[in-house]
Amino acid sequence: MTSPFDDIRNLIATMPGPDDTAAALAAARQATLTKPAGSLGRLEDIAAWLAAWQGKPMPSLDRPLVCVFAGSHGVAARGVSAFPPEVNRQMLDTFAAGGAAINQICAAHGLGFKVFDLALDMPTGDITVAEAMTEKACVATMAFGMEAVAAGTDGLALGEMGIGNTTVAAAIYAALYHGSAETYVGRGTGLDEAGYARKVAAVEAALAHHAGHLHDPLEVLRRLGGREVAAIAGAILAARMQRVPVVLDGYVATAAAAVLHAVNPAALDHCLAGHLSTEGAHGAVLERLGLTPLLSLGMHLGEGSGAALALGIVKAAVACHRDMATFDQAGVSGRLPDA
Amino acid sequence: MTSPFDDIRNLIATMPGPDDTAAALAAARQATLTKPAGSLGRLEDIAAWLAAWQGKPMPSLDRPLVCVFAGSHGVAARGVSAFPPEVNRQMLDTFAAGGAAINQICAAHGLGFKVFDLALDMPTGDITVAEAMTEKACVATMAFGMEAVAAGTDGLALGEMGIGNTTVAAAIYAALYHGSAETYVGRGTGLDEAGYARKVAAVEAALAHHAGHLHDPLEVLRRLGGREVAAIAGAILAARMQRVPVVLDGYVATAAAAVLHAVNPAALDHCLAGHLSTEGAHGAVLERLGLTPLLSLGMHLGEGSGAALALGIVKAAVACHRDMATFDQAGVSGRLPDA
Repeated sequence: MTSPFDDIRNLIATMPGPDDTAAALAAARQATLTKPAGSLGRLEDIAAWLAAWQGKPMPSLDRPLVCVFAGSHGVAARGVSAFPPEVNRQMLDTFAAGGAAINQICAAHGLGFKVFDLALDMPTGDITVAEAMTEKACVATMAFGMEAVAAGTDGLALGEMGIGNTTVAAAIYAALYHGSAETYVGRGTGLDEAGYARKVAAVEAALAHHAGHLHDPLEVLRRLGGREVAAIAGAILAARMQRVPVVLDGYVATAAAAVLHAVNPAALDHCLAGHLSTEGAHGAVLERLGLTPLLSLGMHLGEGSGAALALGIVKAAVACHRDMATFDQAGVSGRLPDA
Repeated sequence: MTSPFDDIRNLIATMPGPDDTAAALAAARQATLTKPAGSLGRLEDIAAWLAAWQGKPMPSLDRPLVCVFAGSHGVAARGVSAFPPEVNRQMLDTFAAGGAAINQICAAHGLGFKVFDLALDMPTGDITVAEAMTEKACVATMAFGMEAVAAGTDGLALGEMGIGNTTVAAAIYAALYHGSAETYVGRGTGLDEAGYARKVAAVEAALAHHAGHLHDPLEVLRRLGGREVAAIAGAILAARMQRVPVVLDGYVATAAAAVLHAVNPAALDHCLAGHLSTEGAHGAVLERLGLTPLLSLGMHLGEGSGAALALGIVKAAVACHRDMATFDQAGVSGRLPDA
């Protein structure tokens, strides 16, 4: 029996690996640059990681792109957010007008920026009583996300926007990793006690309604996920195929990554966790995924904001790798022989 | 009896405080911007902190400057570094040629960059057997550092370069905070075991030689400090007077800050710790100073590199504060009333 998911499963199973030669050459170059070995810390690791996944010893970050996927959620009607669902459309207009936080961060760091409207006027099914998406719709949305990776992009930050989507992310984590709903549910955009209780109840209801169908990560994605989560999963996959390293944003974007990781633990090797969000159990989830966040700034905005800030650091890492002089070029004396 | 330090002491005692009104106005503006309250985390705090110290509710970062002070140390002759002292002059040439890490980071983030040669060809006294500087020389070097804060600068990152200067910094911390030399001594530019032992011995010898004269933080600075440490202390003071917020680099730059803090615990209120260095006891020192580092990237290069990366984040914080739309401007619905 074939399923619309078959192609996706096949894709996840056949993801290309790193270019170990490029990574080794990048690491070798780092050792020749005018600085004590290892003194640039994660900037050196980032250079080698970019080399591995771009497949070139001198990685570039000339066309970095921040993609934000916006989705609309049936579960938002359950009072799980501090903001009303009409904010989705209003924020999309704000992105277009250049007035959101992500616009300023992209401008400050010279990053390209694109927003994708995932049928905002047609919410997904309310996960407490229904499937969020059909298989076909889920695959189509993943394919849409794949298309978002513009040709020539050499670094991709993935973020999202969607009232209700931290509820959806919490449900995905609870389905993948088990444990109580409270373990995963956070305050989102600023829920009060009553709202938090409704959010926990919604996640519990969703898990109960879909019980028995959550052993397959892709089923978790389509039943509990939002369209932005599916699209980000697609974009992560496409980036791997196109040799574009990815920087993940926070709690919701990481849920898309977690679905892929549950299918194939190597699926995120080309991904960097941009930051540690204060939402829900983000830190614990990143630990499960083996990702160490680059930044920890107490943020929980979404919009790709943490990933975009991290791209600023990646930019500096690339600049150091490419443009620093070597000890030989600069005529700087090397280490003294060890005693 | 007057001392050349009297003017400095007077300056430290009469440092201007924050502009609380500007900070309050900045915080009030943050609450109106199109994002959930608090969701930009430390970026919001940074905006209010800049407002407080620049004295304007809409802070700027149009002319950020990275100042690197380079010093030469008599104690380097004790084999306390993995690199020979001639690297000082060679690195100065590399800065001038644009080949160092800090050049690339400044280019990537659009930061101004200046290097100051503090009599590189005339090392300070070997602190294991002599005073590093006379009072007069120490004050003159602090004054030199004060002059480094160019008019119009609206954000200052302070860093250093100098073979042997993590030994000097460790000695300063040990003098200010007591405890064993091992507590403070790190591997610097990559010392082996024997080198590490020599470095610990040098710090112990310095503390023994100057015993009885280390109760006064400014005496600690002139007896154990390098010229770059004195100059950074001067620059921190001048920045306060000129309402320029400061981002501190790592282990050595923080030693200058620690001296001022020991004189007046409010002396660093206009300073942000750019990053957590992996050198020595940097984390413990920052904790003593009440500073929470913005970044933690496993770096220990100096050159202002961590502070310059942090200025990139500060730049984004300013851009969000200044250029985001308010809920009213964007026509975005506010929070729902709490239940």
